[in-house]
Amino acid sequence: MQRILSTELATHENRTVTVAGWVHRRRLLKSVAFLIVRDAAGLSQVVITDPAVRALVGTLPEETVIEVTATVTANAAAPGGVELTEPSVRALSGAAPVPLPFDLHRPALSATMATQLDHAALALRHPSRATALRVSAAAAAGFRETLEKQRFVEIHTPKIVGTATESGANVFTLDYFGRPAYLAQSPQFYKQLMVGVFERVYEVGPVFRAEPHDTARHLAQYTSLDAELGFIEDHRDVMAVLTTVVAGMVATVSARTGVDVPVVPPEIPAVHFADALRIAGAPDDEPDLAPAHERALGEWALREHGSDFVFVTGYPMAKRPFYTHPQPSDPRWSNSFDLLFRGLELVTGGQRLHRHEDYLAVAPSPERISGYLDGFRYGMPPHGGFAIGLERFVARLTGAANVREVTAFPRDLHRVTP
Amino acid sequence: MQRILSTELATHENRTVTVAGWVHRRRLLKSVAFLIVRDAAGLSQVVITDPAVRALVGTLPEETVIEVTATVTANAAAPGGVELTEPSVRALSGAAPVPLPFDLHRPALSATMATQLDHAALALRHPSRATALRVSAAAAAGFRETLEKQRFVEIHTPKIVGTATESGANVFTLDYFGRPAYLAQSPQFYKQLMVGVFERVYEVGPVFRAEPHDTARHLAQYTSLDAELGFIEDHRDVMAVLTTVVAGMVATVSARTGVDVPVVPPEIPAVHFADALRIAGAPDDEPDLAPAHERALGEWALREHGSDFVFVTGYPMAKRPFYTHPQPSDPRWSNSFDLLFRGLELVTGGQRLHRHEDYLAVAPSPERISGYLDGFRYGMPPHGGFAIGLERFVARLTGAANVREVTAFPRDLHRVTP
Repeated sequence: MQRILSTELATHENRTVTVAGWVHRRRLLKSVAFLIVRDAAGLSQVVITDPAVRALVGTLPEETVIEVTATVTANAAAPGGVELTEPSVRALSGAAPVPLPFDLHRPALSATMATQLDHAALALRHPSRATALRVSAAAAAGFRETLEKQRFVEIHTPKIVGTATESGANVFTLDYFGRPAYLAQSPQFYKQLMVGVFERVYEVGPVFRAEPHDTARHLAQYTSLDAELGFIEDHRDVMAVLTTVVAGMVATVSARTGVDVPVVPPEIPAVHFADALRIAGAPDDEPDLAPAHERALGEWALREHGSDFVFVTGYPMAKRPFYTHPQPSDPRWSNSFDLLFRGLELVTGGQRLHRHEDYLAVAPSPERISGYLDGFRYGMPPHGGFAIGLERFVARLTGAANVREVTAFPRDLHRVTP
Repeated sequence: MQRILSTELATHENRTVTVAGWVHRRRLLKSVAFLIVRDAAGLSQVVITDPAVRALVGTLPEETVIEVTATVTANAAAPGGVELTEPSVRALSGAAPVPLPFDLHRPALSATMATQLDHAALALRHPSRATALRVSAAAAAGFRETLEKQRFVEIHTPKIVGTATESGANVFTLDYFGRPAYLAQSPQFYKQLMVGVFERVYEVGPVFRAEPHDTARHLAQYTSLDAELGFIEDHRDVMAVLTTVVAGMVATVSARTGVDVPVVPPEIPAVHFADALRIAGAPDDEPDLAPAHERALGEWALREHGSDFVFVTGYPMAKRPFYTHPQPSDPRWSNSFDLLFRGLELVTGGQRLHRHEDYLAVAPSPERISGYLDGFRYGMPPHGGFAIGLERFVARLTGAANVREVTAFPRDLHRVTP
């Protein structure tokens, strides 16, 4: 019999159907047993009165995979207004161990983060964790859809590199056929070089940081949503694309998951770093924004512009990577930006240098990265781009306190399994 | 002035427009100069009669990035039926070096593959190489779109693993905060475990093989299109999904790039390994199909079924990974398959084991991979999946002789730059 999903039961009232999924919860009462079956779409309630079926279900602990063929019967008290009655039940997997390391049927996972991560394959089945990963999938889909509509072409770039792309620090070293190589910390130069081919490119892929910080927001591997576009006037063209991208991402998250999302204004307020310091009440010689300053800017944007988002532009060149384009009117500042969401940095981007000779003038050791820089000899348009850390984006959107809550199998200083 | 694309010129006849792109070719004749400007969309022809503009263009060698503001004028002999006249020209990049390592304006790249790879950022601008990467982007998009329509959820899994996932051979070792770790050769176990969360999952991401083979089809990093689905009867359910996926991929490639694509029959012919040996004229105790056998099967499928595609099922268990599900009626054979395209292996897949105790019985060293296997303790449905190597798929679709021709910055035994 063709299997249907839990969410399709209501349209099959009084018919015999088959559902399949995991034993989410059993309640074996005196004269009746209730079985909650979880599939990827949701939950089904099964009512068992037949002693033989009840006896079988008694041997099938939580998380056993079963197939249930039964009649769809109206019951206003059941989830979705229907339940399954007169079932036959068949186990499809071996019985799960008893007891499980933690319960999945409670509203929240009560196990510590370490225990959840030790048993990630089980913890991710909890609706809260699964929903966060659905938000992640929707955010990535929204990123791609928005960019595809604007002529961006998807690229796949090397994750193994001969020289560290961004800096020598925090880079993983590997044995590459007997010689050293490195895991890419970003697709930065590759996406820039591909602007020379497609003008507008994007990549969704893993990046690697040997972060010595054991915090709620650092991972050794995360998914970077990268975009880069050529023939820009300056960083404001990049900010305009990013605004559509963030709007597309939250719209897709909302449409696919029903999770509450913030409103992205058609034009996100922007404030120059020099003004941002003043608004945040910081001394005007501060070289960077501290978390407290970012929070103050978030409050300002909400108060003055009714916006959860605010761009800070013009960060001091001294604090940005060497490939950042300076602000033409005052080269102490840069044509770069951060996008803050409720006072937290969400995205970093800006205009890049595009002339080979400019790279030779400012790169810390141009000969070491000549493999990348040579590509700029062949004519590159003014260009810029941005990178969104998918896990941090989802954590901020869902309010997760730890980026590990929204990552399937996180990697950090202490953890390389499962 | 708002920039338009080369492909939009024809709809702007007799108007003044701005195009921007790369100097694809200059021809400086006695009384007139022709400039071909290449943008991501195509080519524009610019006719220069003004001596001052001609003098400027004389200083802008091929690949210099320029902006041209000019009048769109009908000329039946020009590409697209229009050309740009009375131009003003502005350089946006530094001038490219003279001479370039190879010409981009000839129909085919004449440089050796090694030279092309040494100057990849330039070579990828050649229309033949750029088109191959557009085919790649379209194929990945078709893969995702087809699966999203069938309830598959995108996942991102670790590329750094504590134990080699598939086998100890051909794995890259890295220094992970002072201890050894490995680059994932596939997302195999992770995608299987995620079937326990979403029932149907897919991933587009890099995989890593320390391939000691220096051939036209091996790369140290390639993009793997992975899918896995639960609640299957057997491998035939996986083959049915794969058929829709391949059809979706080639349809998207055709729609987006205009590249000629093969017809994917609604039901691809399938032949069991035992029969395949007979058809290929191989001895019936052969443990695997040699390339000559695969070619013979390709010819047979075309002759008997008019199909460029053919499934071979039931490969001997001895030749498949330990997680392969045996054929229930005869456990010498497996519930696995290869999809051949014109006599070449295109995709591998099959049904997997789903019971924890089955893994313990057959895994070569279950304790070594317990981090993965433990996930199977918690109830896994019958499931299976497949993996498509994106670069090989594109090479076969476009007829490229070397997988490096369709890869942006390939990594192999000898090459880790640029």
